[in-house]
Amino acid sequence: MTTPALGVCYYPEHWPEDVWERDAARMAEVGIKWVRIGEFAWSKLEPTPGKLTFDWIIRAMDVLGRHGLKVVFGTPTATPPRWMVDKHPAMLAVDAQGRRRGFGSRRHYDFSHLGYREEAGRITRLLADAVGDHPALGAWQTDNEYGCHGTTYSYSPSAEAGFRQWLAEKYGNVDALNQAWGAVFWSMDYNSFEQVGLPNLLVCEAAPAHDLDFRRYASDQVAAFNKVQFDILKARRPDLPVIHNFMSRYTEFDHYDVAETLDIASWDSYPIGHLAVSDEPDEIKRLYMRQGDPDNAAFHHDLYRAVGHGRWWIMEQQPGPVNWAQFNPDPLPGMARLWAWEGFAHGAEVVTYFRWRQAPFAQEQMHAGLLRPDSEPAPAYHEAMQVAEELKSVALDGLANKGRVALVFDYQSEWAWEIQPQAKGFSHGAHVRALYAAFRKHGIDIDILPPSTKSFAGYDIVAIPALFAWNDALREAITEFDGHLLIGPRSGSKTENFAIPANLAPDLPSNLLDVKVARIDSLDPALDIEVRGSGAIHHWRERIETRANVVIEDVDGWPVLVNQGKLYYLGASGNRALVQRVVDYLLAETDTPTLNLPAGVRCRTRDGFRIYVNYGAGPAALNAATDEAGYVLGTAEMPAAGVTVARLARAG
Amino acid sequence: MTTPALGVCYYPEHWPEDVWERDAARMAEVGIKWVRIGEFAWSKLEPTPGKLTFDWIIRAMDVLGRHGLKVVFGTPTATPPRWMVDKHPAMLAVDAQGRRRGFGSRRHYDFSHLGYREEAGRITRLLADAVGDHPALGAWQTDNEYGCHGTTYSYSPSAEAGFRQWLAEKYGNVDALNQAWGAVFWSMDYNSFEQVGLPNLLVCEAAPAHDLDFRRYASDQVAAFNKVQFDILKARRPDLPVIHNFMSRYTEFDHYDVAETLDIASWDSYPIGHLAVSDEPDEIKRLYMRQGDPDNAAFHHDLYRAVGHGRWWIMEQQPGPVNWAQFNPDPLPGMARLWAWEGFAHGAEVVTYFRWRQAPFAQEQMHAGLLRPDSEPAPAYHEAMQVAEELKSVALDGLANKGRVALVFDYQSEWAWEIQPQAKGFSHGAHVRALYAAFRKHGIDIDILPPSTKSFAGYDIVAIPALFAWNDALREAITEFDGHLLIGPRSGSKTENFAIPANLAPDLPSNLLDVKVARIDSLDPALDIEVRGSGAIHHWRERIETRANVVIEDVDGWPVLVNQGKLYYLGASGNRALVQRVVDYLLAETDTPTLNLPAGVRCRTRDGFRIYVNYGAGPAALNAATDEAGYVLGTAEMPAAGVTVARLARAG
Amino acid sequence: MTTPALGVCYYPEHWPEDVWERDAARMAEVGIKWVRIGEFAWSKLEPTPGKLTFDWIIRAMDVLGRHGLKVVFGTPTATPPRWMVDKHPAMLAVDAQGRRRGFGSRRHYDFSHLGYREEAGRITRLLADAVGDHPALGAWQTDNEYGCHGTTYSYSPSAEAGFRQWLAEKYGNVDALNQAWGAVFWSMDYNSFEQVGLPNLLVCEAAPAHDLDFRRYASDQVAAFNKVQFDILKARRPDLPVIHNFMSRYTEFDHYDVAETLDIASWDSYPIGHLAVSDEPDEIKRLYMRQGDPDNAAFHHDLYRAVGHGRWWIMEQQPGPVNWAQFNPDPLPGMARLWAWEGFAHGAEVVTYFRWRQAPFAQEQMHAGLLRPDSEPAPAYHEAMQVAEELKSVALDGLANKGRVALVFDYQSEWAWEIQPQAKGFSHGAHVRALYAAFRKHGIDIDILPPSTKSFAGYDIVAIPALFAWNDALREAITEFDGHLLIGPRSGSKTENFAIPANLAPDLPSNLLDVKVARIDSLDPALDIEVRGSGAIHHWRERIETRANVVIEDVDGWPVLVNQGKLYYLGASGNRALVQRVVDYLLAETDTPTLNLPAGVRCRTRDGFRIYVNYGAGPAALNAATDEAGYVLGTAEMPAAGVTVARLARAG
Repeated sequence: MTTPALGVCYYPEHWPEDVWERDAARMAEVGIKWVRIGEFAWSKLEPTPGKLTFDWIIRAMDVLGRHGLKVVFGTPTATPPRWMVDKHPAMLAVDAQGRRRGFGSRRHYDFSHLGYREEAGRITRLLADAVGDHPALGAWQTDNEYGCHGTTYSYSPSAEAGFRQWLAEKYGNVDALNQAWGAVFWSMDYNSFEQVGLPNLLVCEAAPAHDLDFRRYASDQVAAFNKVQFDILKARRPDLPVIHNFMSRYTEFDHYDVAETLDIASWDSYPIGHLAVSDEPDEIKRLYMRQGDPDNAAFHHDLYRAVGHGRWWIMEQQPGPVNWAQFNPDPLPGMARLWAWEGFAHGAEVVTYFRWRQAPFAQEQMHAGLLRPDSEPAPAYHEAMQVAEELKSVALDGLANKGRVALVFDYQSEWAWEIQPQAKGFSHGAHVRALYAAFRKHGIDIDILPPSTKSFAGYDIVAIPALFAWNDALREAITEFDGHLLIGPRSGSKTENFAIPANLAPDLPSNLLDVKVARIDSLDPALDIEVRGSGAIHHWRERIETRANVVIEDVDGWPVLVNQGKLYYLGASGNRALVQRVVDYLLAETDTPTLNLPAGVRCRTRDGFRIYVNYGAGPAALNAATDEAGYVLGTAEMPAAGVTVARLARAG
Repeated sequence: MTTPALGVCYYPEHWPEDVWERDAARMAEVGIKWVRIGEFAWSKLEPTPGKLTFDWIIRAMDVLGRHGLKVVFGTPTATPPRWMVDKHPAMLAVDAQGRRRGFGSRRHYDFSHLGYREEAGRITRLLADAVGDHPALGAWQTDNEYGCHGTTYSYSPSAEAGFRQWLAEKYGNVDALNQAWGAVFWSMDYNSFEQVGLPNLLVCEAAPAHDLDFRRYASDQVAAFNKVQFDILKARRPDLPVIHNFMSRYTEFDHYDVAETLDIASWDSYPIGHLAVSDEPDEIKRLYMRQGDPDNAAFHHDLYRAVGHGRWWIMEQQPGPVNWAQFNPDPLPGMARLWAWEGFAHGAEVVTYFRWRQAPFAQEQMHAGLLRPDSEPAPAYHEAMQVAEELKSVALDGLANKGRVALVFDYQSEWAWEIQPQAKGFSHGAHVRALYAAFRKHGIDIDILPPSTKSFAGYDIVAIPALFAWNDALREAITEFDGHLLIGPRSGSKTENFAIPANLAPDLPSNLLDVKVARIDSLDPALDIEVRGSGAIHHWRERIETRANVVIEDVDGWPVLVNQGKLYYLGASGNRALVQRVVDYLLAETDTPTLNLPAGVRCRTRDGFRIYVNYGAGPAALNAATDEAGYVLGTAEMPAAGVTVARLARAG
Repeated sequence: MTTPALGVCYYPEHWPEDVWERDAARMAEVGIKWVRIGEFAWSKLEPTPGKLTFDWIIRAMDVLGRHGLKVVFGTPTATPPRWMVDKHPAMLAVDAQGRRRGFGSRRHYDFSHLGYREEAGRITRLLADAVGDHPALGAWQTDNEYGCHGTTYSYSPSAEAGFRQWLAEKYGNVDALNQAWGAVFWSMDYNSFEQVGLPNLLVCEAAPAHDLDFRRYASDQVAAFNKVQFDILKARRPDLPVIHNFMSRYTEFDHYDVAETLDIASWDSYPIGHLAVSDEPDEIKRLYMRQGDPDNAAFHHDLYRAVGHGRWWIMEQQPGPVNWAQFNPDPLPGMARLWAWEGFAHGAEVVTYFRWRQAPFAQEQMHAGLLRPDSEPAPAYHEAMQVAEELKSVALDGLANKGRVALVFDYQSEWAWEIQPQAKGFSHGAHVRALYAAFRKHGIDIDILPPSTKSFAGYDIVAIPALFAWNDALREAITEFDGHLLIGPRSGSKTENFAIPANLAPDLPSNLLDVKVARIDSLDPALDIEVRGSGAIHHWRERIETRANVVIEDVDGWPVLVNQGKLYYLGASGNRALVQRVVDYLLAETDTPTLNLPAGVRCRTRDGFRIYVNYGAGPAALNAATDEAGYVLGTAEMPAAGVTVARLARAG
């Protein structure tokens, strides 16, 4: 399972049957092992209600199998056919403005609509029965990109009914809900669960606990939707892994929860498009316009490794220009190779390019594939072939190495600060990613941990930035951890019910950390506050009261970083220099070995190898690392988009 | 009544009953005299329809009274309980996009809904009966912040029905309406009042007279809503003042009209948040980010003194960071004291801090109070105590001194130029505030006057900038005034029916002012037109034909400021320098004494004292003023956020 | 017909009948020949259903006729009266957000509503009968400004029903539609035409062919709506021309199609407002704020000459400040004259000022006229009179000269790239206008051609930039053309069904042009790519494979301009310098004579004259042109807003 392999996404229904054979043969020539099919094909599998036409896709699987290719079969539930909407008109979701979101594109369903959830189970069962024993079948994918196009939330009558029932189950009686939401504040008390509405289209903002519960509810519906398919697929073929393909920076539902009913997590990696639509500064966008942010893909690799309990794929890998950003630059030559290698470095089992041939029609006709619409090879065709060759020569196997540093990433904290930023743009994920980049600059392997983690044992350093509320698991992990732990800003500043804790943030026992956040000073991002020594506070600082040791303070004498033994509290949101300074301080305190990487170069170790990738637009020269025993791919002189693999002298 | 006092907003329903006593005792220790309660408590006063539970709030009043505190009781009509919406589903307002604005926050009612208006009267009557004789009761507040969250306007069937009836009463027959609105222009004639719709969701803009009449109608509903409560409260306790708490730069309804049924006007002053959400230039926002705009609070003090016919309070005073702007900085130490003093300087009877204790739950949990959520004092606690002490030592009493300069501020003119800016951003209020700041820079006391003013007697200078239409009162006041009068730009450029006057703007008799505005030149704000001498025209100039004396002209030779005796016409919108030049010219012409104030310092006289406040972030040194007889608080060396009080040598 | 004349728009219904006579006399004094009336007067012509009151407008025509004025009678169908909405509530259009667009302004009708289409025919027929024989009648105008205020598209049930029927007629069977739209892509197949919806309010974007077909459908409804009136008017008076007044940069429907049932095209020219609301760079907006973009009016003159098959008017000419842009500057003195002269230079038969007298009421009360609201002359009154005088002295007659350069402008290509820009802001029209300006800089006469053009004979150079798909006519014209032809970028990159052609773009036979666009590189507009020699690529470049001759290449060695004989392909979107370089290259290759014009000066030849206009804010000196025989109006020294007319030595 852990021998890296390449894959590709293929849509036999888009092409005449007589080209399938040639396509499959060329895939095999490229060195591809896996082919994902099926996930948008419902209308060809069931053109009218109950009329099942699976024969063609079985023939396609036959063809693929004949060429030694393994199939990932995607359930087609992200694109129910038009007739389904006639059958279940209320299956269409309603947006936050109260408008039904119609048929004519994809993901036109409401996670709260139980009738559609049943239909999704029905087609899954039929498919599992029809192709479950096909010899080419190697894995399942459920649906496609849950939440894409803002589809996690629906404000429909179905959602309202579901939310009320969910609340009734959670709270038991409505007084408990009133208490939890602080309803007394503006006479918002309910007399019954039937009176509770959705938090959209109000006069001003809803109570934050109301909003947070709605997001929890909506997230639970995604998990419940996935579970229906998982249960069916596993019942049919317990041996085959069930996978879902998640996305970049889509955090509207809790991926850890959905992955409770997955065997493998995967994600769809479009580095250039993701950078283009991100809120990264223009300077970064321009520097990496043809490469993508050098830390974003890696962060998600590590995140989805955590989501997948160690097992993960790239299910869709950008092969060339995409169609969906405002501007869609051509990748630097070599990037389709680099991205795959970086995925493998972080432990990917399979990297699947999206898609085999550029479709000349419909919404994504400007999205590149390995082949052009005229079936000539696009640049990524050759790069994929190169990767396949290289994988043979570098005997990469086993797993991504465990990191020395871990960062806790929590979906609920993303929701919490969207609900109540206090400073516009304050986000949990941005704090996690800033630390991620600062550690990674030194070549350090990082793991991402869920908030359900009960023990941090084995890590030198763990950071829990901007996590809105503790839970029992984390409290236990913190208490028992004997490594260095960094928390703040804003960590532990709320209860589970989105209230300020009685002891104020960060709400840890004072024998662990004697810190109280007395108040918040949130700032126009154009107005940084200098920190004594170096670095600056950027848009958030806390006035903390503490008897702990002050490591760093700002020009006004407000404590910025304090520690009580190995427990550190950071009372501010830092600019890049301050975040790096804090990270460097922790690395020095823990004597963690670091690498001296050229700008643009990143690395990760896996299974006795260190894989370097050069995101820079120009060449870079690696510095010798003491723990390496020479290069097995590439050299110390890395070209733009270059990949170099070093063998580690000792097990990583 | 005019001895200044401090107050605080308190929500006994948010806290266990056993903390009330301690809270009240501490309020008394701080030196607080007034406590506002009740205005969001409806669900605790009437948890289900008709079940009245007033006992607890009476006990709270008992506790407060025992500590010598007087109660302002707020009617809870801004937060009707959830069951009310079941009873009157149509009470929910409809926004300009046609969407019902649901339950779950506050102000979820439509001023046009007569059923809810009756309910508001009912609970007011019940409350008046229940607590009207309580010995602690000292004043009433009606509702809370009319219009907040864009709630003045509703586009509901109730509003449409009400608007039609209002039009029928105003116009008598539909031909008169067609005439007044210029309906012939695009075949917009109506055959009956029942055909008239609301001015939202049209193909392009409505006729301006249509839009203006809708705004007048909506404003009248706010006044009518208030009158219901006023009549009930005054009938019960004729001796107690009825107050409403207005807001900063909310001008959707005519506050003068609402105040016809108030005894005292009050407003809610959040200087830092108001600056953050304003359209002031970034430079001002950054200079005063921890203080607020140095003229905005004062302007509203003077405005609400006019609205309240001389009597006014600050009903909510910012005590620390707020929760509702994009960025919410911590105030400079001392600002909670400075703001209170500035309020008193402008004649406030009471300054009430919002709120006693920061609520750890619900929407405003990030809004500071005098106490932190853990009941420890926040910085403003000590500042309020200091103010209370200082009020004892400075025997401030009596009234704000009458100003030497008056500015006419008119709500309808705000609506008129929102409807028809001609240059984006042209506003009446901005012109008034620009003059206000320019006069105040010289330490001059200013009064605000309503457009119903019949006489300007007693003022040296009166300005009426950008007032859309004259009325009989103003015409009379202008004709009979023997001081200096400044009008324009755009003053008198419309009739009451939003048409260009037959004689063109400014539509005054030529023996008074021989000026005709031949046409308008409205400009990109990046392109100022220089004025000969100094200053520049900013985004608006008028081509005027005149035989009056030209005082200032621009580089093209267009007259900018002309006068005919003491009547001045300003034919342009000036940048800061030009506005200051015009003001300085008038001050020189009238020999008005001025002060030489340091940057950031402002002042106002009251009752034989001059109160200086330093909005600057650094120290400032006052220049000696010839009419003063020494300082009774502070010195000439003012620290940041400092307050200095001088005694006047002669009555001010 | 081709002797130039002036006109004015007049609304007798806005003024007391006793001023008509004086108005008409003054019009005649100014030298006006044509008066447009009637187009907003429905409520005065039929105040209640079926009650016809045409007498007053006949009296108005009598008055005008008595003063020698000819009438253009506008059908009033852009402003149906309020009672019509009671009769046909579903006639109101629905916007893309699903909201009915109500009564109270204008254009409140849905082109898809057949009931209203019949009503429009009915009033047209009644009017044609009533005034068709009036001696003053000289022409008809249908409706007013089709599409203004975003009214081409409606998302109503009427539109949905009409669209389904239109699709059924186009495709015959639903499988053909599924095929054409690429429905298989996301299971978007339909089982019947009744299942097809409109492309709004979907989860993400519709299939581009779906969207394009909807736009074709909507455009067809505008044409059908116009045809109803045209047929009635021509049946009544075959001798009188039928005209419609189009707009600037409104391209939501195909004007060529609508003009199939017009005799003359006209447009409404508001140069200053058009520049203000355009997306031109700030630098241009400021340089020409009082003149308008120096090429935009001319481009539309040439476009509407094409739309009108050679015959065209300016139906509304800006006379002074308008009311509808964010800022509305006063025109430079002389511009109302210059704009008229420029219109005549490009072949206008009539230039009609909008409007006679500024209306003091309703929506457009801030829009200037030839008279002020108080009936005094506004500046344009005198300028119009000057033009009338000058027209007498310069014996301008005949037609605009045929250009040496032609540019193909295609409405469908505007829609195509709005649907799928790939680089935000990529547009067909912007490419056409960039070439237009670059050719015109050299004083070259340009013609605009529709995409139905079958032959380019007679032109030296033809350009077809960014045209989305070829058709049979164009393929024939290209194949047979023996002049120089420039195509690209993106020309021919789609089939009619919005798919990538099997041979890839530009999809021409390789014996004509051996070019294949392998992929697209679309760029942040802040990041230009330098071109070897000079100029830069701006936001769009294509990776082309070619054996053609490379004329220009970029710094990466990608071909930018290639040629195969006289057929040139441009593989990039250029900045101004690159576009000019390409144009200059073609002009040099073709030995086309050019003029050396001062900045700000433009010219056009008509009938043996060359008319120069100076859009600059300062004076300009003309260089002697070898083909001229002296000036008949003005001199080589042109003042700001100046007009100079040279007589050509030989026929142009």
